[in-house]
Amino acid sequence: MISFENDYLEGAHEKVLTRLIETNMIQDSGYGTDSFSQQAKEKIKAAIQNPDASIRFLVGGTQTNQVVINSVLHQYEGVLAADTGHISTHEAGAIEFSGHKVLELPSVDGKINATDVDNYISTFYADANHQHMVFPGMVYISYPTEYGTLYSHEELESLSHVCKKYDIPLFIDGARLGYGLASKAADVTIADIAKLSDVFYIGGTKIGALCGEAVVFTKNNEPKHFTNLIKQHGALLAKGRLVGIQFLELFTDNLYFTISEHAVNMALKLKTGFIEKGYQLYLDSPTNQQFFVLSNEKIAELQTKVKFACWEKVDDNHQVVRFATSWATTEENIDTLLALI
Amino acid sequence: MISFENDYLEGAHEKVLTRLIETNMIQDSGYGTDSFSQQAKEKIKAAIQNPDASIRFLVGGTQTNQVVINSVLHQYEGVLAADTGHISTHEAGAIEFSGHKVLELPSVDGKINATDVDNYISTFYADANHQHMVFPGMVYISYPTEYGTLYSHEELESLSHVCKKYDIPLFIDGARLGYGLASKAADVTIADIAKLSDVFYIGGTKIGALCGEAVVFTKNNEPKHFTNLIKQHGALLAKGRLVGIQFLELFTDNLYFTISEHAVNMALKLKTGFIEKGYQLYLDSPTNQQFFVLSNEKIAELQTKVKFACWEKVDDNHQVVRFATSWATTEENIDTLLALI
Amino acid sequence: MISFENDYLEGAHEKVLTRLIETNMIQDSGYGTDSFSQQAKEKIKAAIQNPDASIRFLVGGTQTNQVVINSVLHQYEGVLAADTGHISTHEAGAIEFSGHKVLELPSVDGKINATDVDNYISTFYADANHQHMVFPGMVYISYPTEYGTLYSHEELESLSHVCKKYDIPLFIDGARLGYGLASKAADVTIADIAKLSDVFYIGGTKIGALCGEAVVFTKNNEPKHFTNLIKQHGALLAKGRLVGIQFLELFTDNLYFTISEHAVNMALKLKTGFIEKGYQLYLDSPTNQQFFVLSNEKIAELQTKVKFACWEKVDDNHQVVRFATSWATTEENIDTLLALI
Amino acid sequence: MISFENDYLEGAHEKVLTRLIETNMIQDSGYGTDSFSQQAKEKIKAAIQNPDASIRFLVGGTQTNQVVINSVLHQYEGVLAADTGHISTHEAGAIEFSGHKVLELPSVDGKINATDVDNYISTFYADANHQHMVFPGMVYISYPTEYGTLYSHEELESLSHVCKKYDIPLFIDGARLGYGLASKAADVTIADIAKLSDVFYIGGTKIGALCGEAVVFTKNNEPKHFTNLIKQHGALLAKGRLVGIQFLELFTDNLYFTISEHAVNMALKLKTGFIEKGYQLYLDSPTNQQFFVLSNEKIAELQTKVKFACWEKVDDNHQVVRFATSWATTEENIDTLLALI
Repeated sequence: MISFENDYLEGAHEKVLTRLIETNMIQDSGYGTDSFSQQAKEKIKAAIQNPDASIRFLVGGTQTNQVVINSVLHQYEGVLAADTGHISTHEAGAIEFSGHKVLELPSVDGKINATDVDNYISTFYADANHQHMVFPGMVYISYPTEYGTLYSHEELESLSHVCKKYDIPLFIDGARLGYGLASKAADVTIADIAKLSDVFYIGGTKIGALCGEAVVFTKNNEPKHFTNLIKQHGALLAKGRLVGIQFLELFTDNLYFTISEHAVNMALKLKTGFIEKGYQLYLDSPTNQQFFVLSNEKIAELQTKVKFACWEKVDDNHQVVRFATSWATTEENIDTLLALI
Repeated sequence: MISFENDYLEGAHEKVLTRLIETNMIQDSGYGTDSFSQQAKEKIKAAIQNPDASIRFLVGGTQTNQVVINSVLHQYEGVLAADTGHISTHEAGAIEFSGHKVLELPSVDGKINATDVDNYISTFYADANHQHMVFPGMVYISYPTEYGTLYSHEELESLSHVCKKYDIPLFIDGARLGYGLASKAADVTIADIAKLSDVFYIGGTKIGALCGEAVVFTKNNEPKHFTNLIKQHGALLAKGRLVGIQFLELFTDNLYFTISEHAVNMALKLKTGFIEKGYQLYLDSPTNQQFFVLSNEKIAELQTKVKFACWEKVDDNHQVVRFATSWATTEENIDTLLALI
Repeated sequence: MISFENDYLEGAHEKVLTRLIETNMIQDSGYGTDSFSQQAKEKIKAAIQNPDASIRFLVGGTQTNQVVINSVLHQYEGVLAADTGHISTHEAGAIEFSGHKVLELPSVDGKINATDVDNYISTFYADANHQHMVFPGMVYISYPTEYGTLYSHEELESLSHVCKKYDIPLFIDGARLGYGLASKAADVTIADIAKLSDVFYIGGTKIGALCGEAVVFTKNNEPKHFTNLIKQHGALLAKGRLVGIQFLELFTDNLYFTISEHAVNMALKLKTGFIEKGYQLYLDSPTNQQFFVLSNEKIAELQTKVKFACWEKVDDNHQVVRFATSWATTEENIDTLLALI
Repeated sequence: MISFENDYLEGAHEKVLTRLIETNMIQDSGYGTDSFSQQAKEKIKAAIQNPDASIRFLVGGTQTNQVVINSVLHQYEGVLAADTGHISTHEAGAIEFSGHKVLELPSVDGKINATDVDNYISTFYADANHQHMVFPGMVYISYPTEYGTLYSHEELESLSHVCKKYDIPLFIDGARLGYGLASKAADVTIADIAKLSDVFYIGGTKIGALCGEAVVFTKNNEPKHFTNLIKQHGALLAKGRLVGIQFLELFTDNLYFTISEHAVNMALKLKTGFIEKGYQLYLDSPTNQQFFVLSNEKIAELQTKVKFACWEKVDDNHQVVRFATSWATTEENIDTLLALI
């Protein structure tokens, strides 16, 4: 049975795997101090046009969010995020486990806006009781969002501006960063992301790697003794090379962006196919995740032949479903799917 | 320059890598629910002769210790461990970060004994003030220890017995489990480890895998909602298959044990070579880590040609050094080293 | 200047103080094991008609919420609460600091309802991804609420029922419990509170005591080693007698209820006075906190003579203000206030 | 039965109680912003001869240690303390609960020394693996110690010096500060304590107050948003006046020191009496806690008439016992005790 259930269904991109094979028996040092990780960092710095960036490789998305947020925030601070943000909903309380409140803001299509952030923070400081409340200490957004949508350059600039106004960092969760940047709807580059954020991460797990996320501190703002903090979270890989080598390959010859573009193309073909057959979009995503409203009957019928995710209930007879493409999606599978609907 | 600095210098064993390559493009589900992980669990259950065991795959050692200890302990409990135990010394306070005290016991050659555990706990309960103290809620040992030494079957039985007496679990850190079991000095099997402990883990990172540890709950005692707890620690791999596939291969045709034996053989050849040349053992390790007392002069000389770890200062002129072998150590490198000393 | 700023403006009720004076030099044991605390517990058990209840004395409200919630919840659980609940808004992230998420529900006049709780929990369990989400492990409500409003017996029964349905405890924050129960609008007794909740606390700080809250576990459900957990939170008073003696007096001759009734009477007189002079209620509170919508101009004028709390902005020209009465409020001060408006 | 079980057997000193009574009905603001607390702070600043000190009132000792240590340390840091220190042994893991490891140093008569601290820290930084270890971020000592002993001015200066050398704060737990300073063996004043430490606290609970400790930050080093952090720990008293008023009285007319001296005098009379009757000192304490080695038989006999604390087992027939005096100890009770032995 073919699957569009998520974007981590297969192993790694062939080239990434090849690089792992080629380097396999070379001895190198541990905990991310290896030469591969060093080279990968240089490649990423070049890509983001920021030679002073500080880069670290971690294993997965929730881990990265927890380590970054917990390391950057003061203890009296929480993190502002969309009520639909990954840290708000699907990380099993990992942020709270590390002691911090997620301060939820209302969202539209997965996005928050600078005005709401500004109002939240100014209201907070205007409140005579704010010493009894959680200080807003960071803004967290996902690019693309959990609903596949994208912030425009203008929206990101506004968010960046309001963060500067209150001197708090803007953190961009880029678990699917490539799928955002490769979208025709994107009006930002990875260099813009680096410029507009204070810290962001480049997702590898969902884009070509077996595992791994690259955290980028863009403003000489890596937390003090960050290696120790990573270790304290149980997040320091002994064989740090595993992630370093993969990012080295992903950032060689634009691989990360090429394979991201493929995924987006497959998603758009899928979307067009659904629309042409009269299906209803739940929202209009320009990236690798596509959301439709299907009847329960249609869902049951399709599930005998294709895997996909049921997202949420619309009414007693309909649900929002998600089809995800990835670097590994074949056009053949898209055609098979479209033939089925 | 050849290196004996640690046992995670290379990538993965060739067969493990091959299995990753062969399965790479097969679609499977995420978060450890894939069929490879399922098969790997069956292989491990067979190896430990415990069909009812509950097995989970995590990424690294400190992460595993933190997740297991934090998930098993009640909040009012701490974990008893050797003062030289990994959780006591080299995990950056990961156990305390998750809220629990490491209750340190004196050690000899990295080992604690049942009598000291018994005395600690009985003294604790005899103390009228024990409600103001941290309850001893688990015993943690490493097999082999951080100094390469091994507990005998009798010693493990005694520890198991005292844990049963006080109804607390015995947790065995098996980051180098294979290197212990493959030692000629070992008088236990992996089935014994499973029988005598309540929870243990089988180290993959140091024995043939790119990353990964297999946690085994042996007494129908997996913590409730353990998936959620793993997620909360940021330790749930999206592509759980990455670790599952590797353990599937490691537990096929005895690979885990065969490659462990190789490492131990290389270590013994190294040890014999050093002894024959008159070097002083720091302690007599029968496993893959070998500790010697070398003069600073000798250390400086050797360091120009070989990498190894300086462990601790003995006096102003001498240090304890460690040479580690692994599944990847070549006999050629051993010969080169022995020729140098 | 007279003040209605809050309900903790003075020290303790005269009788409470007298009891402290009378017992002052009697030697007794520490940490809540003293005979006064024992007697106070018996008095409370009689008042709540539950001889099997387990009672503990803590110092303040946020401390009590943190200790109870953190001790009762499993690590994978969060606590459901009104978005206006004290733990959601005004405890500086104390619940998150201890590792747990506050799962906010929409509220009306400070209250949540059983249907919303039921929907939240059933939706949670129906979600295929719920292992990646925070488990709802407790329902927290305040009686009276932060807006002075009261749950009816029927509403409490429904909440109790839905908690039983999902086997999670109902925790009632009674920081102002007396002011709720003494209200003419209340259709429950303290025995009903004990019967319908799994754990609740009787607020002393705001009702006659210098400090202190009495936590009551009503269903043989005191957390194991609770003394140790209290100590771990830094919440175990050496001179536990301080709180024990005060509750002993508060629960002698109905003092707790008598002085609560006085506060409510003063509040109703205040409310009536405001209404008669044409002021607008923000909401209709039947307890000791009264909320009005005043113009900024009126606020500025009044603030020269009376202290009260500005609660939130309504529009550019109006704010919600709160006047609180307490056991210590004099009718003279009410008259003075009413003469001013 | 008379008791020497501890130093918190009674309520408050008569004058402290009187001040509470006199101020009882005066309305004042909450959370430590009241005028009494302000006056008390001024009195303390005068006593310590440090007009720039920042002072906060908390409720109890473990709470104070947890709040101070957790607020001052970075997340990657632990606190160095004697293995017999209160935070190491008798706080139920409160420091670890807040995420920090207590790094235990060997002690003699409850004291650590500057050389051991220096060696610990220099060894730590010399260790190539120190990024995997807990950073020593503070030194904690008790004055007097848990065994009633005192650091000399020279010892404190050395500790202060080594802390400055490594730029970490020296924190002095003064739960029994008065009983130390009032000892004839003391060669420091409270001004010296303030000068030599970075933060210390003045214990009230054990010296004349119903509850309360005064934390003093002596070097313009109060943690940012400390009110919020106190609240987050559940340690912010609504009626902060309760502690403020007590310290105001304790620091009026030298009361704190006068009543401390009385306690020490009673302790010395007790010690002399025991020695004259041939009893063996466990160690020679010059403060309010006196430790003797008694036979089990003697202990059993005495326990029928006097309460005291059994501290630890010496051998099968002997135990260390502690007799504590306080501001409230009467000479009559001392005489009764001495007549019994």
